Amino acid sequence: MRKMLQNLSKVFYPKSVAIVGATPTTNKVGNVILKNFLDGKFQGKIYPVNPKYKDMLGIKCYSRMSDIPGKVDCAIIATPARTVIPIMEECVRKKTGGLVVITSGFEEIGESELAKRMNEISVRNNMPVVGPNCLGVFNPYSKMDSIFLPMYKLERPRAGNIAFITQSGAVGSTVVDLAAHYGVGISKFISYGNATVLDESDYLEYLAEDDETEIILMYIEGVKDGRKLLNCMKKVNKKKPIIVLKGGKGAGGMAAAKSHTGNIAGSYTAYHAAFKQAKVIEADGLYELFDIVKMFNQPKPKGNRIGIITNGGGLGIITADCVEREGLKLAQFSEKTRKEIKRIMPAYGSVGNPLDLVADSGIESYKKAVEVLMKSDEIDILVIIALMQTPPMDERIIHILTKASDDKSKPIASISIGGNYTEAYRQILDSNNVPSYNSPNAAIKAIERLITYSEYCAHLKKKA
Amino acid sequence: MRKMLQNLSKVFYPKSVAIVGATPTTNKVGNVILKNFLDGKFQGKIYPVNPKYKDMLGIKCYSRMSDIPGKVDCAIIATPARTVIPIMEECVRKKTGGLVVITSGFEEIGESELAKRMNEISVRNNMPVVGPNCLGVFNPYSKMDSIFLPMYKLERPRAGNIAFITQSGAVGSTVVDLAAHYGVGISKFISYGNATVLDESDYLEYLAEDDETEIILMYIEGVKDGRKLLNCMKKVNKKKPIIVLKGGKGAGGMAAAKSHTGNIAGSYTAYHAAFKQAKVIEADGLYELFDIVKMFNQPKPKGNRIGIITNGGGLGIITADCVEREGLKLAQFSEKTRKEIKRIMPAYGSVGNPLDLVADSGIESYKKAVEVLMKSDEIDILVIIALMQTPPMDERIIHILTKASDDKSKPIASISIGGNYTEAYRQILDSNNVPSYNSPNAAIKAIERLITYSEYCAHLKKKA
Repeated sequence: MRKMLQNLSKVFYPKSVAIVGATPTTNKVGNVILKNFLDGKFQGKIYPVNPKYKDMLGIKCYSRMSDIPGKVDCAIIATPARTVIPIMEECVRKKTGGLVVITSGFEEIGESELAKRMNEISVRNNMPVVGPNCLGVFNPYSKMDSIFLPMYKLERPRAGNIAFITQSGAVGSTVVDLAAHYGVGISKFISYGNATVLDESDYLEYLAEDDETEIILMYIEGVKDGRKLLNCMKKVNKKKPIIVLKGGKGAGGMAAAKSHTGNIAGSYTAYHAAFKQAKVIEADGLYELFDIVKMFNQPKPKGNRIGIITNGGGLGIITADCVEREGLKLAQFSEKTRKEIKRIMPAYGSVGNPLDLVADSGIESYKKAVEVLMKSDEIDILVIIALMQTPPMDERIIHILTKASDDKSKPIASISIGGNYTEAYRQILDSNNVPSYNSPNAAIKAIERLITYSEYCAHLKKKA
Repeated sequence: MRKMLQNLSKVFYPKSVAIVGATPTTNKVGNVILKNFLDGKFQGKIYPVNPKYKDMLGIKCYSRMSDIPGKVDCAIIATPARTVIPIMEECVRKKTGGLVVITSGFEEIGESELAKRMNEISVRNNMPVVGPNCLGVFNPYSKMDSIFLPMYKLERPRAGNIAFITQSGAVGSTVVDLAAHYGVGISKFISYGNATVLDESDYLEYLAEDDETEIILMYIEGVKDGRKLLNCMKKVNKKKPIIVLKGGKGAGGMAAAKSHTGNIAGSYTAYHAAFKQAKVIEADGLYELFDIVKMFNQPKPKGNRIGIITNGGGLGIITADCVEREGLKLAQFSEKTRKEIKRIMPAYGSVGNPLDLVADSGIESYKKAVEVLMKSDEIDILVIIALMQTPPMDERIIHILTKASDDKSKPIASISIGGNYTEAYRQILDSNNVPSYNSPNAAIKAIERLITYSEYCAHLKKKA
């Protein structure tokens, strides 16, 4: 397996890619993938393979793998299921580094014999296979991109430190799209489908050693080897936080998961217990997965005392409710801090936590309030609610928030809710590493998860 | 009170508006409000009032209320707190229809004497006062708009059938902005602040009779007369659904609410019990308030059996999990329905619920699947997950979804998650009355609330 995982690097960083099943027909999978490689400015060699064509999209096309002149680091296969095994055998003869098999029609529809043969060929030759029945791999560092969704429909995120392992292509692609939308950076994306050869644990193992990955997101439906996953999660989570979403929790979802990737979802209770034992962070929904990971790019907090600054009283109150619901603490300000704050407040503002600067407070009082609370050791995490719609609020808030985030003395989160104007600001904040939320609930839940993981890390450190 | 509420119509549908405290200084409250009236194409007369200016923004300015030539239906007051009572007395002499007092600095900072006098003058003269310490009123039908947030920062929603009563201006304005963003129509917006004269119950009473309002949203922090609210909610909720969000649930939130509007938030347990007794729908968060109301514009379902169509297996599974978590049922398809569906499916798709059409299924199979399930009496609510990023998906999905929604035979909800491309589609769907969600959790929660309210209505009908 060691050798297999080493070869997986060829899939993530290929210098040459064959797209088997490439076609000039618009919107077909083999067309979209080829077009994405061309549009995505992939720097290596690109070889479309299809016996029906001499060329397509302006480049030469090859009849079969063996016709390709140079060596092939990665072959992406998007041909009908019955053709996959013969193509794999060609790939072996060609000494191809690794494969991504997009094609469906294996375990998930009962074709377990085909799946078994795929596994045998792969293992015997140490030739890793991602898939089948998947979107495959996206690596913004190397521009390797087998996601068969057009770029104008699904934006590609910038390079960053977050890896995402997903069994479902649908779930995976939406997370990629959201990451791009909010300017959040990705290190590796792996949609692994049926996990016929390499499974979620193998990818975890690979990412644990990947220098570009600092945080790992996972979406799992069914796992073949639960014990292996538990042990692997335990090990990796100590080094890099793992945030996981389990799909197929109820009976109906479980049945659907079975027909989706051919894996049995299994009792959710067992998964939940395993996640708890490995101290991995569990998300309740798709958006939450994304909400949490943004927070994990902040420094680890020293405790659970939350300070809240707001220019809208009601939003401060709703946020305070969330803090208490999540079992966290609203920080108590000392007399000294209260005095400092009092100096920057309008007469009718109230010096409390939440600190309500009121809607017509100038941007200057925001600046000062953030400065006072950032340096205060009475709070561990600062939540800044910025109602962008109020008249005095302007682009200087971005400077104030990024400065606080760059400071790295404590984690911060920002909350802004609104339409186009507000959303534009939120995108700028997110893409500048200020976690920005459009829901107090989402922000506070993410903070709670960060605190829990930080406590675990502190505990590990103490033990060591 | 009857007379007072009748006069409130003058505030919602004024033919003439005085803006007391109007100013040419950019970004000041009195400037933004005047500018919004001018930009918002208000058809009635607009009278800025400020002794310091002869004119502003191109129109004549008056020194005091008594200088205004014609009568004034509504005076919006945005001057310092100490000046408000004398201005109110001027308004009485001028026989002004009603007032919106934006100004802060009353009960919320302990100035209860000022508040008492405001109440006396109002009640004695049947001159309704919205506020103080509020954003006031927005009515897209009459273009009455005292929201002191610039239009480029806070979009104004189109005219529709949803009223929103909010104690907090911050919470209120974000909901207005979200409604505009998603093209959801508003009938009346009321930010009532301290509720010194008219309170939430009075506004409920008014909206119960308002022809343009069919659904009522509320955000409440503290209430003075809980019994009055309970009785009023009970009565109104039978006629028009009320969806409520309570702010200030925990100890910290409660303390903040006290300083926010001068009202005591009180024990959340008591509120929760009252909401339950009145059968009003309770939301857990700000976004949820908005998520639920979109669903309430759909027809009432006959039961709780959910059908799910998806082109992404994983998203179908996550949605099925939500259905079970909310205590709803995944519909069971009969042999007849299964056969009908089988005909339109690709070979490797699975005929289950969720019905997974798989990522490369054409738009035609979507169309047929929606048609089959819309006419089936085996499901009560249809949830359509449309992963907009897949190659065959295009703008025809909008036609399919709006057609299903227009059909009115059963409620539908759509789920799409993604970046700019997907969000553009979601906005089109929402503004065409197809409730669209970017989270399975949000969609299914909203459906659960609609089912609960529909069951209540069915129960009332049976009793009658």
